[in-house]
Amino acid sequence: MNIDMIRAAAKRLEGHARRTPILTSPFLDEIAGRRVFVKAECLQHTGSFKFRGGWSAVSALSDNELKSGVIAFSSGNHAQGIALAAREHGAPAVIIMPSNAPAIKIANTRALGAEVVLYDRATEDRDALGAKLAAERGLTLIKPFDEPLVIAGQGTCGLEIAQELGDLNADVMVCCGGGGLTSGIALALAADAPGLCVRPAEPEGFDDVTRSLASGTIERNAQLDGSICDAIITPQPGNITFPIMQAHCGPGVVVTEDECLRAMGVAFDRLKIVIEPGGAVALAAALYHPDEFTSDAVVAVATGGNVDPAIFKRALDTLA
Amino acid sequence: MNIDMIRAAAKRLEGHARRTPILTSPFLDEIAGRRVFVKAECLQHTGSFKFRGGWSAVSALSDNELKSGVIAFSSGNHAQGIALAAREHGAPAVIIMPSNAPAIKIANTRALGAEVVLYDRATEDRDALGAKLAAERGLTLIKPFDEPLVIAGQGTCGLEIAQELGDLNADVMVCCGGGGLTSGIALALAADAPGLCVRPAEPEGFDDVTRSLASGTIERNAQLDGSICDAIITPQPGNITFPIMQAHCGPGVVVTEDECLRAMGVAFDRLKIVIEPGGAVALAAALYHPDEFTSDAVVAVATGGNVDPAIFKRALDTLA
Repeated sequence: MNIDMIRAAAKRLEGHARRTPILTSPFLDEIAGRRVFVKAECLQHTGSFKFRGGWSAVSALSDNELKSGVIAFSSGNHAQGIALAAREHGAPAVIIMPSNAPAIKIANTRALGAEVVLYDRATEDRDALGAKLAAERGLTLIKPFDEPLVIAGQGTCGLEIAQELGDLNADVMVCCGGGGLTSGIALALAADAPGLCVRPAEPEGFDDVTRSLASGTIERNAQLDGSICDAIITPQPGNITFPIMQAHCGPGVVVTEDECLRAMGVAFDRLKIVIEPGGAVALAAALYHPDEFTSDAVVAVATGGNVDPAIFKRALDTLA
Repeated sequence: MNIDMIRAAAKRLEGHARRTPILTSPFLDEIAGRRVFVKAECLQHTGSFKFRGGWSAVSALSDNELKSGVIAFSSGNHAQGIALAAREHGAPAVIIMPSNAPAIKIANTRALGAEVVLYDRATEDRDALGAKLAAERGLTLIKPFDEPLVIAGQGTCGLEIAQELGDLNADVMVCCGGGGLTSGIALALAADAPGLCVRPAEPEGFDDVTRSLASGTIERNAQLDGSICDAIITPQPGNITFPIMQAHCGPGVVVTEDECLRAMGVAFDRLKIVIEPGGAVALAAALYHPDEFTSDAVVAVATGGNVDPAIFKRALDTLA
């Protein structure tokens, strides 16, 4: 992985991915006690930065590979990013999803033109099913985060931050699951904006990256269920993403679910954007963990995805 | 009023107002049966296009006028647009608001540095109070819509639409109260994008502009209360805005409150933006009144402001 791969991805994404705006509000600055800049990546196609990685990977395929199609495992944002990117390339997309995934996510993925193959988490082997389908149809597997082309795509978000805020000395909080977005942005900023330091944000109880960075070795989460921040819950940092984060990121910041809901409420009220719980961890860190920063500005990447209205109502209730 | 005033306002706004993004989603296209482009003006500072007009008017004042300050009557978005624009110019701002205005709007206006003067709607004369304060302190009155500098500021939104979508043949639905935004955008598009035709959108029961355009003479609303679209309810079109709309706008489209709530839900779900009921009328028209359009694309301006969480929950309930 290197900056040239990110710059090449940026060329492929131009005119296809949205250049998302960076939003500010004096009300956020007041809460945080410093300037706050929010990279509103929720306004990306499909609501999530995953479209960047999906487009980056699909657009790098040969004509023959495109003709055969792509395959991905995902119950969420990666599925929809790949589905839309494949459709716009005229490539078939197969998405393997657990049969108990939320109906809305299955419906959305199908609506974007993908063939959804459901499997039973209890009795079926997802990887074996995927390998069989890939072999039969000649599909190219696109992994959600531990894949150089995907990391390069997510890194384009970092190039945009560097272009607009490259003169700042600030912490850049990034929502972190497997580390694709975090490591991509970190590589971009290391090259183009050395005053900006990426720091991963994670929810309490699912802080594998924060612990891994502290210990210097890959640590796992004890559990994978039971968080409203499900969009960014992964077992552990990736084999490709972790060394990049070790080289370029500051310490992680861990936030509570309540802080995520409050950050969603503030984003609704003051920025007029809709973010999901997992996409709010970075803003929650920026707003509610002032003692973890020393610089006089903080940048937070905020992402969307499919937001459950019932959970969003809980976020609205924090405004009362 | 002419296009040169809008271009001059655009120069004054550059680097201060946000250039708001134009968002799309295949899901919206499917609902509408045509391409839908949403100008996300809710992402403007203070959440509303009113900041454009406020900045345009304040930035045109002389140093002496700025030193004395400005005054406005408003219980909502205009108040906050003027307050923020004045603060950033170092000018005092007095906002006269009814004492029964929502506490959050009073608090927000004060938080942006304005002096809020409350009056009792039943017993006090707002205009007399404002005239007295203006005379005592040498304040400049900035009217919310029937004011050339304000119309010019709102028109900058139209210049941006023309720059991005000027090659389209499409209807451009604009949320319409007194007509400042509608007439400003109409002037800009008439000059720079003749294939784009502005049409005002209004809520049922408050369709003064639609009726005025149809009859050719200024018509009034029978009532001014009782709409969730309160942000765009005015007694009648303005004396300056109406002739501009007559010259440049197609017929109005009238939508129901339920359609506004559904449009708010779709904007939440598919675009990840927060719009208020009055700011949703244009999108509601674009999505739910397909028979009123003949072109194969429609542009809708969507605006924010202070969205009541209780009303937003009703919008979320339309998604079930």
